[in-house]
Amino acid sequence: MPIEIKHPVPSDIDIAHAAEKLPITEIAKSVGLLEDELELYGKYKAKVKLEVLDRLKDVPNGKYIDVTAITPTPLGEGKTVTTIGLSQGLHYIGKKVFTCIRQPSQGPTFGIKGGAAGGGYAQVVPMEDFNLHLTGDIHAVGAAHNLLAAAIENRMAKEARWSTDFLAKALCPDNEYTDSMRKRLDKLGIKSEKPSDLNDADKERMFRLNIDPDAIQWRRVVDVSDASLRNITIGKGGKGNGLVRESGYDITVASEIMAALAMCTDLADLRERMGRIIIGTSKKGGKMHAGTIEPITAEDLNVAGAMTVLLKDAIKPNLMQTLPGSPAFVHCGPFANIAQGNSSIIADKIALKLADYVVTESGFGADCGMEKFMNLKCRYSGLVPDCVVLVATIRALKMHGGGPKVVAGKPLAKEYTEENLELLEAGLPNLLQHIENATKFGVPVVVAINRFKYDTDAEVELIRKRAKETGAEDAVMHFVWAKGGEGGADLARAVVKAVEKPNNFKFLYDDDMSIKEKIETVAREIYRADGVDYTPEAEAKIKQFTKMGLSHLPLCVAKTHLSFSSDPTLKGTPRGFRMPITDVRASVGAGFIFPLCGTMKTMPGLPTRPVFTDIDIDVETGEVLGLS
Amino acid sequence: MPIEIKHPVPSDIDIAHAAEKLPITEIAKSVGLLEDELELYGKYKAKVKLEVLDRLKDVPNGKYIDVTAITPTPLGEGKTVTTIGLSQGLHYIGKKVFTCIRQPSQGPTFGIKGGAAGGGYAQVVPMEDFNLHLTGDIHAVGAAHNLLAAAIENRMAKEARWSTDFLAKALCPDNEYTDSMRKRLDKLGIKSEKPSDLNDADKERMFRLNIDPDAIQWRRVVDVSDASLRNITIGKGGKGNGLVRESGYDITVASEIMAALAMCTDLADLRERMGRIIIGTSKKGGKMHAGTIEPITAEDLNVAGAMTVLLKDAIKPNLMQTLPGSPAFVHCGPFANIAQGNSSIIADKIALKLADYVVTESGFGADCGMEKFMNLKCRYSGLVPDCVVLVATIRALKMHGGGPKVVAGKPLAKEYTEENLELLEAGLPNLLQHIENATKFGVPVVVAINRFKYDTDAEVELIRKRAKETGAEDAVMHFVWAKGGEGGADLARAVVKAVEKPNNFKFLYDDDMSIKEKIETVAREIYRADGVDYTPEAEAKIKQFTKMGLSHLPLCVAKTHLSFSSDPTLKGTPRGFRMPITDVRASVGAGFIFPLCGTMKTMPGLPTRPVFTDIDIDVETGEVLGLS
Repeated sequence: MPIEIKHPVPSDIDIAHAAEKLPITEIAKSVGLLEDELELYGKYKAKVKLEVLDRLKDVPNGKYIDVTAITPTPLGEGKTVTTIGLSQGLHYIGKKVFTCIRQPSQGPTFGIKGGAAGGGYAQVVPMEDFNLHLTGDIHAVGAAHNLLAAAIENRMAKEARWSTDFLAKALCPDNEYTDSMRKRLDKLGIKSEKPSDLNDADKERMFRLNIDPDAIQWRRVVDVSDASLRNITIGKGGKGNGLVRESGYDITVASEIMAALAMCTDLADLRERMGRIIIGTSKKGGKMHAGTIEPITAEDLNVAGAMTVLLKDAIKPNLMQTLPGSPAFVHCGPFANIAQGNSSIIADKIALKLADYVVTESGFGADCGMEKFMNLKCRYSGLVPDCVVLVATIRALKMHGGGPKVVAGKPLAKEYTEENLELLEAGLPNLLQHIENATKFGVPVVVAINRFKYDTDAEVELIRKRAKETGAEDAVMHFVWAKGGEGGADLARAVVKAVEKPNNFKFLYDDDMSIKEKIETVAREIYRADGVDYTPEAEAKIKQFTKMGLSHLPLCVAKTHLSFSSDPTLKGTPRGFRMPITDVRASVGAGFIFPLCGTMKTMPGLPTRPVFTDIDIDVETGEVLGLS
Repeated sequence: MPIEIKHPVPSDIDIAHAAEKLPITEIAKSVGLLEDELELYGKYKAKVKLEVLDRLKDVPNGKYIDVTAITPTPLGEGKTVTTIGLSQGLHYIGKKVFTCIRQPSQGPTFGIKGGAAGGGYAQVVPMEDFNLHLTGDIHAVGAAHNLLAAAIENRMAKEARWSTDFLAKALCPDNEYTDSMRKRLDKLGIKSEKPSDLNDADKERMFRLNIDPDAIQWRRVVDVSDASLRNITIGKGGKGNGLVRESGYDITVASEIMAALAMCTDLADLRERMGRIIIGTSKKGGKMHAGTIEPITAEDLNVAGAMTVLLKDAIKPNLMQTLPGSPAFVHCGPFANIAQGNSSIIADKIALKLADYVVTESGFGADCGMEKFMNLKCRYSGLVPDCVVLVATIRALKMHGGGPKVVAGKPLAKEYTEENLELLEAGLPNLLQHIENATKFGVPVVVAINRFKYDTDAEVELIRKRAKETGAEDAVMHFVWAKGGEGGADLARAVVKAVEKPNNFKFLYDDDMSIKEKIETVAREIYRADGVDYTPEAEAKIKQFTKMGLSHLPLCVAKTHLSFSSDPTLKGTPRGFRMPITDVRASVGAGFIFPLCGTMKTMPGLPTRPVFTDIDIDVETGEVLGLS
């Protein structure tokens, strides 16, 4: 539908409210979805059933485009705006396009950041629904996550209290195993038809998980920015109130379940992933376990089935629309450092059957989000990307060239508001290294310059020249924030051209490389480190995971997005540094090993004046006020 | 639609899956809802917009029927089954009926209790949706609750760190007040157009809330049974991670926000209630507050608007259907001891415009749920009940007569499985006292005997005789669990007759009575206590709340439902006892004072074998397995 473009550009929520949205049933019809394949959530949102993949299994996939960015300033460089705007641009030039993006966390929406539905004339609507509960998927992830947490605590408390015989009788009152229990029997290599078959040693191994409280890595989650929950002591208040233990909360989108949901390919895969989640290990030296440490999974706790049940609707992608009425899937929002930072595989798979061009976004800069898009997401999905769109701003490039610090809420220094080709030239290597990295995956690259009002033609031309010299197919500026689809038409045309180029997609490392070889490959090839240093803890974990048979898993390196290196203050293209791996963890449900380069914050805090201060409701119309 | 009744009765989930459900659009059409008044959530659930109340404001209300029960055994006496079955019975005899019930908490669904969508052939379907997230209302309540909790913690941490000048500038960066801040100015009696107007003392009073950490009564919530969260220490980990404090979690349905949502009459009322929530008090002796203790509200924290935004969809009732296709609203599920234990006022109001008979249920026994239905819910709604249906079982009456203890999971003693008129006669006074109590509100009473296979005709006849002697309009047995609507037809006919009786509805106490007078009225008239004893803490709170101007609020007494008294072991009709009030709290957002008779558990735990052990998903069909 046509939108009247105003100047100056109104607030995001005013643009969103002024838009004439199509009923989501119309959007669905326009991409060939059948009525029975939809589950409506009000008039403007719908879940799409996975059955559609069966119906369309013989339809060839559309072109698959990943939007990523150079190393950003703390303000962000407009990656989501470009993603949505590129889609609107493709729609504008008459292409059949689908956008696939992440659902944002409510924590930052009410805390520091505000909404994340794009901005200006490049938005997904209704923006309130996008930014608030949407269809409840994040809450479902939280419910499944916290159910597992309660199951852990409860099992430890009950094991501390009861004899193994009592536990066996309580867990199998009819002397029968559940399917989940049979999986544990298989894992332990115990042959038994009924609990009464078991000898004492096997009964103990089977029914006493003997969880080591100090080895539990499963915390709790909530979709609120609440710093005071980062570190808590649980189980206080005496008998019946659990065992006293140090633990804490992460924001829900940091849950391994969110990563697994985004990574799974169908319900059966999700059920498997839930069962594989490792919550910690057994204690060394349990009576019957002497000397061996066993990873304890959600399956061992007999709760993976219930967790999957809680996610049975969350697995279905959410259909929405962009301002001009092109279709968008908003589905999953895993963290971009400790997880893959990419929207769901299932949404992409369905979109690729329904449209000729699918535009998706990966979080953070290309050294983080794109690397994980390629090595992780595409590895699990089997999909082949046709183009990488690398978002750059002249502001960020000047910062990499040595420009003054860019701070949210402070006015920009004159280096950023005046033409400065020298500073830009000095910062360009950051962009060029990202281009080189992307081409290592064998995929064509288009640079998208998110143009601001200060930027000059000479500056744009300089980027264009250097980018093309370095192997980019093209470098095109866009104005989607101010002009919507029309402002993204040139970029869209460049992408249409690029996706037809020959594609030599390949992963950066193979499954059968060792964990260390994988880490070192990413560190050298992407970050350009001289080498990797491991703490003794990281070394021990790598050994442990290798012994557990987990070394085939791909990597999800957790590092800052503000530098190629692990030091956020090193801008541009750092050289002569080593990557410090401080710890290594395994998200077996999500399907990756994640080495940590430093401490990652997994629970945001609130500023003195949180965004919620401005948010209210018009009690007459029900309209949300102050959300941006 | 017709259901084939099988014998023996299959499992709840098998019956639910075998049912041929109507699309919810059909159900909506059958009660005259317009398409535009619906927000579909899949094919079998829809939210109904509050605008319908404007359209139908001149339509006379249907008859309003509250289903309650005698003092139950720990097994429950089938109140929800009777509520749904009575509705199905009314539907069966050709009446236009609407059922309004609570949404259950997911905690017990996965923990001790299992599902709560009725049972046998008296169910609301789809039962998975009913028992799981439904449309996300409970999660929305949790999000709003925990956002307020984060706002409290954040404000205390920031106030501890910054000067008043800094706080004022951070909170009002443009030297302007938000609407919410103006409300605080009004409350403090400060006249000011802009923050820069304020003198130092007023600036301090305005921007430094000076919250007393020891007086905070706002905890956090989660919809999971997790005993280890009952008592926790938060804010650990040093600077930037909040202030160290003892706190804890309740189950989400125990949130004051759930009670307020169920009690509100429209969006404006909900917004007001959110603002009024008292989270604690200011410290005595703050620099500028010397000597005065101020209640601190969600409005003072500028977060009540955002909380209401999070609830903008949760305020709309959820339309579902019973097995034979009569309409049901499933909306809100406040706790039945520390809150009103009744489904929402808004659902009842809409249902009364759409049907001739509205059947709703109040939690626990009639001394708890019904008393609150009358004195609290009807006070805020202005609705007048036309009939009370009092559910009794012969099993429970025999227990009140001195029968052996009834324990979940253990076989029933022979006293319960053989005719025993003597034991029944001895237990009948419990029923009769509930009948007397109900008639004190001036409303006709029908006793519904939920008949079990062991019960004999002579036993049923004895109940019938005594009930009618004591003032019940009738006492009718039903078989809705085994036979659905047909099994509730006689009960339905008795209710149709009773609602036509003259109605002299009145509250048990007036708004302007003192808090103590109200407590003593309920204790004497309903519980039949000789008097009330207050702890010094309760006395102090009553004084404090009276001083704060809260004594006009109605009561919500928090006591056990297993006895008329506060001692769960005293069965039948205890006499010669006094009610001990251990503490008194104020839920100003929900709109009541709640005196506590002992300690109430607001966070359930898990048994050794939680219900989730049996729950799984069929990965081929997506069907939920093992939910009951």
